[in-house]
Amino acid sequence: MRWRRQLFDKCSVEPATITACSGARGHQVRYVVGVMGPSKARRKDLENARALGELIARREWVLLTGGRAVGVMHAASQGAKKVPRSLTVGVLPTTKDKISKYVDVAIITEMGNARNNVCVLSSQVIVACGLGGSGTVSEVALALKAGKHVVLLGATPVEEKFFKNLGGRFISSVETPEDAINAILKRFDEGEVADLRALEPWHGY
Amino acid sequence: MRWRRQLFDKCSVEPATITACSGARGHQVRYVVGVMGPSKARRKDLENARALGELIARREWVLLTGGRAVGVMHAASQGAKKVPRSLTVGVLPTTKDKISKYVDVAIITEMGNARNNVCVLSSQVIVACGLGGSGTVSEVALALKAGKHVVLLGATPVEEKFFKNLGGRFISSVETPEDAINAILKRFDEGEVADLRALEPWHGY
Amino acid sequence: MRWRRQLFDKCSVEPATITACSGARGHQVRYVVGVMGPSKARRKDLENARALGELIARREWVLLTGGRAVGVMHAASQGAKKVPRSLTVGVLPTTKDKISKYVDVAIITEMGNARNNVCVLSSQVIVACGLGGSGTVSEVALALKAGKHVVLLGATPVEEKFFKNLGGRFISSVETPEDAINAILKRFDEGEVADLRALEPWHGY
Amino acid sequence: MRWRRQLFDKCSVEPATITACSGARGHQVRYVVGVMGPSKARRKDLENARALGELIARREWVLLTGGRAVGVMHAASQGAKKVPRSLTVGVLPTTKDKISKYVDVAIITEMGNARNNVCVLSSQVIVACGLGGSGTVSEVALALKAGKHVVLLGATPVEEKFFKNLGGRFISSVETPEDAINAILKRFDEGEVADLRALEPWHGY
Repeated sequence: MRWRRQLFDKCSVEPATITACSGARGHQVRYVVGVMGPSKARRKDLENARALGELIARREWVLLTGGRAVGVMHAASQGAKKVPRSLTVGVLPTTKDKISKYVDVAIITEMGNARNNVCVLSSQVIVACGLGGSGTVSEVALALKAGKHVVLLGATPVEEKFFKNLGGRFISSVETPEDAINAILKRFDEGEVADLRALEPWHGY
Repeated sequence: MRWRRQLFDKCSVEPATITACSGARGHQVRYVVGVMGPSKARRKDLENARALGELIARREWVLLTGGRAVGVMHAASQGAKKVPRSLTVGVLPTTKDKISKYVDVAIITEMGNARNNVCVLSSQVIVACGLGGSGTVSEVALALKAGKHVVLLGATPVEEKFFKNLGGRFISSVETPEDAINAILKRFDEGEVADLRALEPWHGY
Repeated sequence: MRWRRQLFDKCSVEPATITACSGARGHQVRYVVGVMGPSKARRKDLENARALGELIARREWVLLTGGRAVGVMHAASQGAKKVPRSLTVGVLPTTKDKISKYVDVAIITEMGNARNNVCVLSSQVIVACGLGGSGTVSEVALALKAGKHVVLLGATPVEEKFFKNLGGRFISSVETPEDAINAILKRFDEGEVADLRALEPWHGY
Repeated sequence: MRWRRQLFDKCSVEPATITACSGARGHQVRYVVGVMGPSKARRKDLENARALGELIARREWVLLTGGRAVGVMHAASQGAKKVPRSLTVGVLPTTKDKISKYVDVAIITEMGNARNNVCVLSSQVIVACGLGGSGTVSEVALALKAGKHVVLLGATPVEEKFFKNLGGRFISSVETPEDAINAILKRFDEGEVADLRALEPWHGY
């Protein structure tokens, strides 16, 4: 099954909300957007992350981050928690990390940086909010490896060129949080957003 | 910080609800109960899992399972989704598993059976609902390794003896879903429920 | 392809050595025996581990352990390194563990206790040398989950009964390191030793 | 402890061999070089990988690859196995991959692409032989995250610029397998080669 806007419209309460529906009982799996970025982030990346987190939550999408109380992950979760009934998931590398207080559900992986793969596989789409950190670069690469679309927010020309060479049409590059949301919505219209599970259709939704 | 009933009472809306509060802004991290059990389960284990899932959700705790559309994980999630505004998290082994339609947020680990360690680390307490499967046994053992309390629901005498030898006071053994909940609540009274992070106090809550 | 004694005999230099051969070029994949056991081990378990490591190395099998400089893993590697040209592999949980000085090749997983799954999947057969630790119990359970044979060395009656209930014919229980080796050899005669890869035949050997 | 040429010279049999020694008993931990690259590789990358594998084995270093029977990993292992008494380790993503017949010891992680982190952590230095694949890019990024030196072999100008921006002095860029070896040796002279364990000195060697 593809995620298409017209499909979701059938069961969505608000037109702005895109989720999947599961027929009779109306149970919905939540659409998850992963926001990745450096722990030592520039001011601009933090501002983008906060705005992006809030926009994601306003659409009733789940925000997924690396969950630590630093940098882009912390700022994005903070933005999302401005919105009532938002849901933030943090996927943490170790049992000893300080968890962001804006994370509702903490997934403790004890996998170190290999948790980056869990972050991208558990998100339907990824937004990379600043590419200055090697962790974020690994996440973009792992997302492409898994067939996920990646939206680069605020990439430099070299970064954009490098990743477009690597990922082709799976890469979008934008300048603002609003455009990142638009890039995600555009994927719905194209029926192109990757499923959580890469190789089979979802059942039961 | 320890999870104590009196602490949560300060900020809980309903007395029956046990969550943690974070002072000024009132943001709450969600308390997560992991329910583990065989994919090929006996009828009794499935009934227990459904009842247990519902009881967990009624207390506004998050239910965490292995997320697949089979056995105890499916039944527990189904029970929880009878409760409005419940939250079910499934931590899945591969990108190709059929996800239970009663899972709200799917964490795709692509770690195979090593995802069992993520399940137990991301839960504050574990209930093992039937020990007939080697996956479940590995989860109980990994939970003990991580310093988590484990409630055995419907264990045989040999299973109970084996795990009490291994885990001592970290093991409770009960016969009914209601008693599993009581065993969890007793931990709160004792201030003993293990934090998500084993070795340091939580910050910021 | 099954690992059978008669097969290996075709290309083995010494009759006592069991390895696989790959036809024309004579390249051999190494047969790997995993020895698991507590980090805080009893004297008897340490003695067994040392003797077992040496016996494994004498057969030119690779010894695989958890790699840390403590307990059964350290003792087994020490025993193996008494034998010239032995090969010891240690699969370590974190980047900060002290590595046993008897480990030739260190695989650093940064997966915490989830590395236990790597240990069992990378071994053709497992010997559990003392079951007093929850890590070891998780390894036996994960090995059974993966369809590997497990030899329990020095198990108590409760431990033996529990694991025979769980694993059936995949469990052998023995009292001495020599009998552990015999239990492994018996598997060859039965053509039953699990391949590294559970679901497909090996190619190219 | 730093890996310095003068240190190794004390116990090395051949001047060309760089390994670490552990004093009295003369036991040596093996120095591991990871060679990463695409599974669908260009002819030039395959030729480089074969030559590089052979050069690594001639120095008695252990070759570590992704272990599958395709692309750069297969070619590098093939090159190494031309050398008598060479040792090749393959770190495989799943239990179902076809293992390269040039791999001596197969580490089966069942972690999917997260095994890339195990590859880089288990190597003292990484050579990326072609950067056309997103898996390889993730490995270079994870290696930098872990503080490992990375030698880029045959990178395009954009790739070189991107990774030098990201990794600074931890990145070398070369054109031939011989220069890749020289870049590794240069690290020894500088005492800069990262230890397997990033944060503490090695003990016991």
